[in-house]
Amino acid sequence: MELVTEALAGNRYALARLISLVEDNGAGARAALAALHPRTGQAHIVGVTGAPGTGKSTLVNELTKVLRAQDTTVGVVAVDPSSPFTGGALLGDRVRMRDLAGDPGVFIRSMATRGSLGGLARATSDVVKVLDAVGFTVVLVETVGAGQAEVDIARTAHTTVVVEAPGMGDEVQALKAGLLEIADVLVVNKADRPGAAQAARVLEMVINQNAPRPSSHRGAGEDVWRPPILQTIALDGTGVPEVLEAVAAHREYLRASGTWAERERARIETELRNVLQQELLGQVLARVGEEQIRAWVERIVAREVDVYTAVQAILGT
Amino acid sequence: MELVTEALAGNRYALARLISLVEDNGAGARAALAALHPRTGQAHIVGVTGAPGTGKSTLVNELTKVLRAQDTTVGVVAVDPSSPFTGGALLGDRVRMRDLAGDPGVFIRSMATRGSLGGLARATSDVVKVLDAVGFTVVLVETVGAGQAEVDIARTAHTTVVVEAPGMGDEVQALKAGLLEIADVLVVNKADRPGAAQAARVLEMVINQNAPRPSSHRGAGEDVWRPPILQTIALDGTGVPEVLEAVAAHREYLRASGTWAERERARIETELRNVLQQELLGQVLARVGEEQIRAWVERIVAREVDVYTAVQAILGT
Repeated sequence: MELVTEALAGNRYALARLISLVEDNGAGARAALAALHPRTGQAHIVGVTGAPGTGKSTLVNELTKVLRAQDTTVGVVAVDPSSPFTGGALLGDRVRMRDLAGDPGVFIRSMATRGSLGGLARATSDVVKVLDAVGFTVVLVETVGAGQAEVDIARTAHTTVVVEAPGMGDEVQALKAGLLEIADVLVVNKADRPGAAQAARVLEMVINQNAPRPSSHRGAGEDVWRPPILQTIALDGTGVPEVLEAVAAHREYLRASGTWAERERARIETELRNVLQQELLGQVLARVGEEQIRAWVERIVAREVDVYTAVQAILGT
Repeated sequence: MELVTEALAGNRYALARLISLVEDNGAGARAALAALHPRTGQAHIVGVTGAPGTGKSTLVNELTKVLRAQDTTVGVVAVDPSSPFTGGALLGDRVRMRDLAGDPGVFIRSMATRGSLGGLARATSDVVKVLDAVGFTVVLVETVGAGQAEVDIARTAHTTVVVEAPGMGDEVQALKAGLLEIADVLVVNKADRPGAAQAARVLEMVINQNAPRPSSHRGAGEDVWRPPILQTIALDGTGVPEVLEAVAAHREYLRASGTWAERERARIETELRNVLQQELLGQVLARVGEEQIRAWVERIVAREVDVYTAVQAILGT
């Protein structure tokens, strides 16, 4: 609790420790989150997602710098295992990251990979809550947008930025990976490479085809949101302010149309289900014991019993 | 049960219906899986994973053709949303897929994206079990290897093939995405493109650096497995037989070293935990009711209560 008080008072060391506590789900983590909960709900949570190699880490870095120049405080949560923030950095990335070091208006946390499905989503969501509660205005969540877990994390953001790059394959990858459905802002990064304009045109075409009918998505007196398609060269900052303008415009749209509350509700419902699931499993494991679980595994391996029958038996005890 | 009997007798229509039943976790799915369980454990489950655009779908297609030419029966489960098997195909992909149509020694199933974390892993694992039980010798599981859920699925295979392609970005993506750790066979596809030999050399270097110390990984009298690095042009079949030779060699290594049983055990334990979790959540939702859950969501949205406190209250009822 002292940690919470000190983190709220602006002590960065306490904040770092609080985040670690929450990420690891350690003793006192839940009490801390309960204490912080009334202060959450203020930050604009922005997901930045895309395939490895699109340069989204560099973009996150540049977005952060421009936001800081506007005096906006920024929390960064890097879930992408290929992000420089998570240790997968090449030398150039690390050099760029140093630009942000020492600025009290920025807090960067990279998430360790979790052993189990759902663990990563839980930890990410809790870390975002802490950054929200202590007052960061924008929280950027960087995920590699190609997996179900990562798409689920991106889906819980208020605004999702999907990053593409030309020449990543033979076709626009977002189309295939289903990322387009969750995109609020589309960015074609590495726009100085051949094929960037072509990639943007293909995205434009697809957005037009998929444009929602006015009746189904129209908010209270608001026009439908159409994801803008922007080109950037994150390496030198070209186009980055325009991405932030689009993100801010989307925030206004969410507020005006009532979609903000809808997304909030969806995020919280997903979270509630995930926490319920993990809590229940924890209870059962505590009751049944790891040894018993291992014994059931052996019986399944020996083909004496199948997994569903084993689960029924475990829950019947 | 009739469906199980007919599927085991070689009725493809019954097999397709059985797989749908199991995928959707429909009524009777669990009884069917219990009946099939004693027949499982025979197939060689081979995961094929890599980023979108590496051409792994084409590789899976070619692997299947070569296996069929060797009279080996093949089940294919495509979890990758960008796979031609799942409907994301470009015209060329669909044409290639037709080569396999009408062959009773092949069964291809693409998995729909699941709404929740864990649902996809559960469904995939159950579909693989059915294909194993009805007698397919090799089951290829194609996943896009960039997300936690997908990596978890790949990890449950006996043998994991990680596919790279030159020019996908500025660096070898497998290094960054942590895929290298799970690779048993490494393939640099699109080997006719510039940079293929360079990509292979980088992988070679990393493999050498990461080579496990003999003491920690050595099996019963067996040498340590070192992932071979192969180059293919899946589009015209170049190098594909060599990939299958490496996969077969890995299978022999697994059997001889006792690692096969270890992997089997790990897979089953993961599955047991996932099924337990889902079952428990289902029970609670059935007891508490969706309406109550929504009421809790509203209280969390209103910041009256935080999610962990809500979960405690729900489980306390």
